[in-house]
Amino acid sequence: MKVLITGIDGYSGWPLALHLLGRGHEVFGIDNFVTRRRVKEVGSWSAVAVPSFANRQRAVRTLLGKELGFYRGDLGNYAFVHSVLEREKPDAIVHLAEQRSAPYSMIDVHHAVATQVENLTGTLHLLYAIRDACPKAHLVKMGTMGEYGTPNTDIPEGFFETEFRGRKDVLPFPRQAGSWYHWSKVFDSGDVMFASKIFGIAATDVMQGVIYGIRTAEMSDHRLLTRFDFDETWGTALNRFIAQSVLGLPITPYGKGEQRRGFIALEDSMQSLRLAVENPAQPGEYRVFNQFDAAYSVNELAETTARVAKEFGLSPVIEHPPDPRVEAEQHYYNPIHERLYTLGYRRTRELEEVVREIFHDLLRYRRRLEARRYVVQPTVQWRSVDSRPAILARHASTPAPPSTGPGEPTTEGPPA
Amino acid sequence: MKVLITGIDGYSGWPLALHLLGRGHEVFGIDNFVTRRRVKEVGSWSAVAVPSFANRQRAVRTLLGKELGFYRGDLGNYAFVHSVLEREKPDAIVHLAEQRSAPYSMIDVHHAVATQVENLTGTLHLLYAIRDACPKAHLVKMGTMGEYGTPNTDIPEGFFETEFRGRKDVLPFPRQAGSWYHWSKVFDSGDVMFASKIFGIAATDVMQGVIYGIRTAEMSDHRLLTRFDFDETWGTALNRFIAQSVLGLPITPYGKGEQRRGFIALEDSMQSLRLAVENPAQPGEYRVFNQFDAAYSVNELAETTARVAKEFGLSPVIEHPPDPRVEAEQHYYNPIHERLYTLGYRRTRELEEVVREIFHDLLRYRRRLEARRYVVQPTVQWRSVDSRPAILARHASTPAPPSTGPGEPTTEGPPA
Repeated sequence: MKVLITGIDGYSGWPLALHLLGRGHEVFGIDNFVTRRRVKEVGSWSAVAVPSFANRQRAVRTLLGKELGFYRGDLGNYAFVHSVLEREKPDAIVHLAEQRSAPYSMIDVHHAVATQVENLTGTLHLLYAIRDACPKAHLVKMGTMGEYGTPNTDIPEGFFETEFRGRKDVLPFPRQAGSWYHWSKVFDSGDVMFASKIFGIAATDVMQGVIYGIRTAEMSDHRLLTRFDFDETWGTALNRFIAQSVLGLPITPYGKGEQRRGFIALEDSMQSLRLAVENPAQPGEYRVFNQFDAAYSVNELAETTARVAKEFGLSPVIEHPPDPRVEAEQHYYNPIHERLYTLGYRRTRELEEVVREIFHDLLRYRRRLEARRYVVQPTVQWRSVDSRPAILARHASTPAPPSTGPGEPTTEGPPA
Repeated sequence: MKVLITGIDGYSGWPLALHLLGRGHEVFGIDNFVTRRRVKEVGSWSAVAVPSFANRQRAVRTLLGKELGFYRGDLGNYAFVHSVLEREKPDAIVHLAEQRSAPYSMIDVHHAVATQVENLTGTLHLLYAIRDACPKAHLVKMGTMGEYGTPNTDIPEGFFETEFRGRKDVLPFPRQAGSWYHWSKVFDSGDVMFASKIFGIAATDVMQGVIYGIRTAEMSDHRLLTRFDFDETWGTALNRFIAQSVLGLPITPYGKGEQRRGFIALEDSMQSLRLAVENPAQPGEYRVFNQFDAAYSVNELAETTARVAKEFGLSPVIEHPPDPRVEAEQHYYNPIHERLYTLGYRRTRELEEVVREIFHDLLRYRRRLEARRYVVQPTVQWRSVDSRPAILARHASTPAPPSTGPGEPTTEGPPA
């Protein structure tokens, strides 16, 4: 198959490209490198030095003997999106090119608007470009389990049969997102569902769990590694916990720490997306996958992190700062996730084993973490405070970084 | 109370201003006059010649002896929104400043994006400006019954108790909108609900039925009339049916014509919005009103129109063109609408009586309808066709309009 990955330069876009190439698919990508710029905006960088995209393409050619097509551009430009789809006519499009950070969306009004406007515009542009340039292409859209929030019932895969006042219907399951970012994904789901209905587009909407991991099987060489964010804005809770342990900072599960979420290993997320691509939806079908492997509480992540940290001779301490988010700190959580299994999914990685692997890598990149230690602890508040001043103050207190990490070529900025 | 109306120059913003002034409230408004420009864009104009806003303010002063505050500006500009709220500190904000046409949003990708981006950005800007400038203000947000679509169950007012796999919760009722415009309202509802939760904003989300009517009690003089759109993009089905009858064109309920929707008279919609303003939500409360008076099918509207047309000596013919929308042409429809009644709402106008009033006025403005007769019949398609070429072709076939309507001063463009 010929597969377009939007956001191919990102944390999951890059390993997906490697994984699909390894399976014999023809792969090309789009990116505008905005994540690189925005991680810099909050004063951070990737723990793993990220090569320029030109160097990534070169590494794929040299190490894997494959060609990786690439268009630099922005999904906000419809003429660009349409021309790429018209020229390439992909069989499948995996749409990952969205602002993906909940805390980033909560910084202030401008970050809220940018997140929702960009995510929604990119998706609408893709939907129309598919209609006009490659109507048979299968769209695999990255959403999030966070769209559902934490209802006091099980969570179905997208739709459920419900009864109200004695009458029944199969309806979309209600969404109760917890950040402007998560709401942007809810909005995308609405638009994709509607486009599928009116344009006949084949669509898979992936309610993705939180991804954990730093490597996949295809990353045989450091030049093939993906980015790994550990700051409070771009890093997941687990990433930050491991970075905190490496830096001798307290591990900080928010509030009671009983917030439960669905998780999946990076390797298995790639497996899942590949299964969705290789088993496409039908024309006009809109299907929803709850794509996670197991649910953990934030406390379980903190405890796993602390246990593994000790294996590495570290002395982790767990603290519970007040929750800067507005969320239930204790709640029921039992989402259904069966569809992937019917396509042949099986778990290949265990949480603790992956945590060990991340520790191993982050200890190697310790100097890059040390140079950014001030971005790990939380500053962004969900409630009535703009977080921009705190982020700017942090910039001022951060010492000038070394220009490269230990032993690795780095180009954090976008390639020329 | 001091009330801000965003979109005060529009079809319902203007009569709401008159109605609230009449009840002794202090009223001021914001508008960017974009509806005036966009109605022109599709080759149409209001049946009622709309005075410039400066003339509207003058008429209010002269005829009603009241002052009406006004800020010309765009909700897309956060600094503007914040400065107005900071300066005025209103007690209530009735937010009507949105792109309100479903067909307009379906013209092509750019109209889809403009609709969703503008509506969402304006609402987010208002929410943050309320948080920062007047956190106690009550937001009354204009949504639409169209957010719910046509499920095969009753429709509650926003939330319902549901059971899934043996567990219960009160959840937002699922939304299944039928155009990019209607989805933009769904998105707004999500953002307002979330802002209410995290910022503590008092919010009433009005799921408004289709409004019908051309006058309210306060419009004692033609200088106080509101706009009335009859073209296929900006006019409602009922408005178009009456215009079709006046112009000797066939009345065109789409498809089977059994599409049912909730309706409310303009006068009673103003009553409802006033009741919401005068009975505010509590801080942090997000409440949803299903604001309509009765449900009618499109066929019932067509038949009522034809019946009244004959009273005026016209010879109406009803035709059923294929439905250009993607919607159920026959369906169950029974939304709950009780909350308004608990605040004291009662119906003051009947459909047939209002239809008669509209006929009376449109026959007076017949020359303005004749000059735009080519914009009444449908061209915008929901499915896989851009409607821009058909709209442009229509422009070319439209004769140059007379510069004013019969006996009325007109300034269709924005005031200087």
